[in-house]
Amino acid sequence: MTTINDVAQYAGVSKNTVSRYLNNRGYISQMTREKIRNAINVLQYHPNQIARSLYSSRTNLVGLVIPDVTQPFFSTMTACIEDQLDRKGYKMILCDTKDSSSKEKKYLEMLQENKVDGIIIGSHSIDIRYSDISAPIVALDRNLADDIPVVSANHEQGGRIAAQAFIRHGCKKVIQLVGYTKVRTPSGKRHAAFGEEMMKHGIACHTYELGLNQFDFDSYLDVADMILDRYPDLDGVFAADMVALAVQKRALTRGLAIPSDLLVFGYDGSFIYKTAYPPLPTIIQPYRQLAKVAVSVLMKLINKEKVDQLSYTIDVKPSMQE
Amino acid sequence: MTTINDVAQYAGVSKNTVSRYLNNRGYISQMTREKIRNAINVLQYHPNQIARSLYSSRTNLVGLVIPDVTQPFFSTMTACIEDQLDRKGYKMILCDTKDSSSKEKKYLEMLQENKVDGIIIGSHSIDIRYSDISAPIVALDRNLADDIPVVSANHEQGGRIAAQAFIRHGCKKVIQLVGYTKVRTPSGKRHAAFGEEMMKHGIACHTYELGLNQFDFDSYLDVADMILDRYPDLDGVFAADMVALAVQKRALTRGLAIPSDLLVFGYDGSFIYKTAYPPLPTIIQPYRQLAKVAVSVLMKLINKEKVDQLSYTIDVKPSMQE
Repeated sequence: MTTINDVAQYAGVSKNTVSRYLNNRGYISQMTREKIRNAINVLQYHPNQIARSLYSSRTNLVGLVIPDVTQPFFSTMTACIEDQLDRKGYKMILCDTKDSSSKEKKYLEMLQENKVDGIIIGSHSIDIRYSDISAPIVALDRNLADDIPVVSANHEQGGRIAAQAFIRHGCKKVIQLVGYTKVRTPSGKRHAAFGEEMMKHGIACHTYELGLNQFDFDSYLDVADMILDRYPDLDGVFAADMVALAVQKRALTRGLAIPSDLLVFGYDGSFIYKTAYPPLPTIIQPYRQLAKVAVSVLMKLINKEKVDQLSYTIDVKPSMQE
Repeated sequence: MTTINDVAQYAGVSKNTVSRYLNNRGYISQMTREKIRNAINVLQYHPNQIARSLYSSRTNLVGLVIPDVTQPFFSTMTACIEDQLDRKGYKMILCDTKDSSSKEKKYLEMLQENKVDGIIIGSHSIDIRYSDISAPIVALDRNLADDIPVVSANHEQGGRIAAQAFIRHGCKKVIQLVGYTKVRTPSGKRHAAFGEEMMKHGIACHTYELGLNQFDFDSYLDVADMILDRYPDLDGVFAADMVALAVQKRALTRGLAIPSDLLVFGYDGSFIYKTAYPPLPTIIQPYRQLAKVAVSVLMKLINKEKVDQLSYTIDVKPSMQE
């Protein structure tokens, strides 16, 4: 009996490629398609229908790949995505990459092997070529590849709203803490917009870049100390909530009055900003909406329906009336 | 051809029971076993081997059922469990019950249908009879049923360590905020031990009981206001970190000095207590160890190995040198 291995050998391609051809998944070049079609005809290959139906059947499993589920932004996104998937009859496998691209790769392999129907990726590994993957993937707040749909908050709007607070406060010298800039993420727009507003209003604006996947709170406290040492005349700090909480804590420890001496303004707006005293003003990301759109775009990809956009941007709002 | 349905009908049991008999899973009474064996002999039933092997094969999936992944205690546990499962070659399906017992029931059904190999439950639904389930389940910090292994921190030790801080501080009137007491959890021992120490040292000790699965931070702020209103002469509060942060915030808003006017002492010790200013002393739960033991006990159950204990208790430590 002719097997899939025979077809692969005859066509001079991998077994995996033949599988993808049979299941109509993933990108296969025209030339490869013809080689496989020819091999199937010559060898009179009849794929095992039972195995094939098992293989191509839906798993109703979706993988969520994030760098650190303990971060309030990611735990809140995780809860919202799990909820949205549950409403569609899908279960969610959680992959916490902890800065390990090999773990992320394992999930991408599962996708290729049809063990999950799709993946939502809120992580970013520098050494993965996402553009090689042509299967149901939605990126959460990350630009992974030109043809992978991205769902993100309106960071530009968030940056401008935050900027207004610093302007109204009469700040003269501020700093914004930004994520690792070697990977492209929509959040870059927030920092660009914020910097632009500062420049327009003649406010000196420094930038400090955090490391890739730097999530440890103790390391945020160290960054806070370093910044407060280096810029003793700073009167404003704009950073993601967890980093902002670290700066506020260190500023209070040094006897600075918040916000009169130093305006600390956050970004993310999960439950965590509510714990701060003095209160931490912040920008609230639209978690439920982000999850809803990400899951609905993924469902379209899984069902091979047309996806009308490659970028979905959802408005944010400030935590307090501005 | 005789089917599993015929066997079930002849034996007068459900199809599910016959499945469990064939796959040697779950509890089946001696009498039921004999009825099924007899039906199989009489009807000359030969289970479909392919279907059966597919059915009984490992999925390498484990379900983690928790009430709210955004809570830092649960997000930290989730990260540690996912890591431990990954080391054993298992993927983790996350089920965030959000106080919905129907979602938890769905997972228990998946377990019965062999869609996951085992479940770790850190949730608790009052209307589920866990004792009816005889399949690989490990309880995390919950007493679900007498024969389900429980993994938890040494809460009694934690309660006593915390008590020492209130005694040293010279407190006269304290309150401890406890979880919903209608469900049995090992954390009850922490409150009992704490209350005992207070009594031994002549310190008045009130108790306030939170609702089942009460996780919303705004509701913690309301509880904090209510307590500070009702007991204006309070000089100590013992509560889980998130609740303690709410109390500390409200106390600071009212102009109380922390800790001189009011000693606030937490419990849990995930990253979250580190954000507090003034610093929040707390008890650190052994997250990694809890995950390691829970996963290793679950693996034993899945592999039908002997589990030597039904209760695993792991020591805690204070966040500061006591």
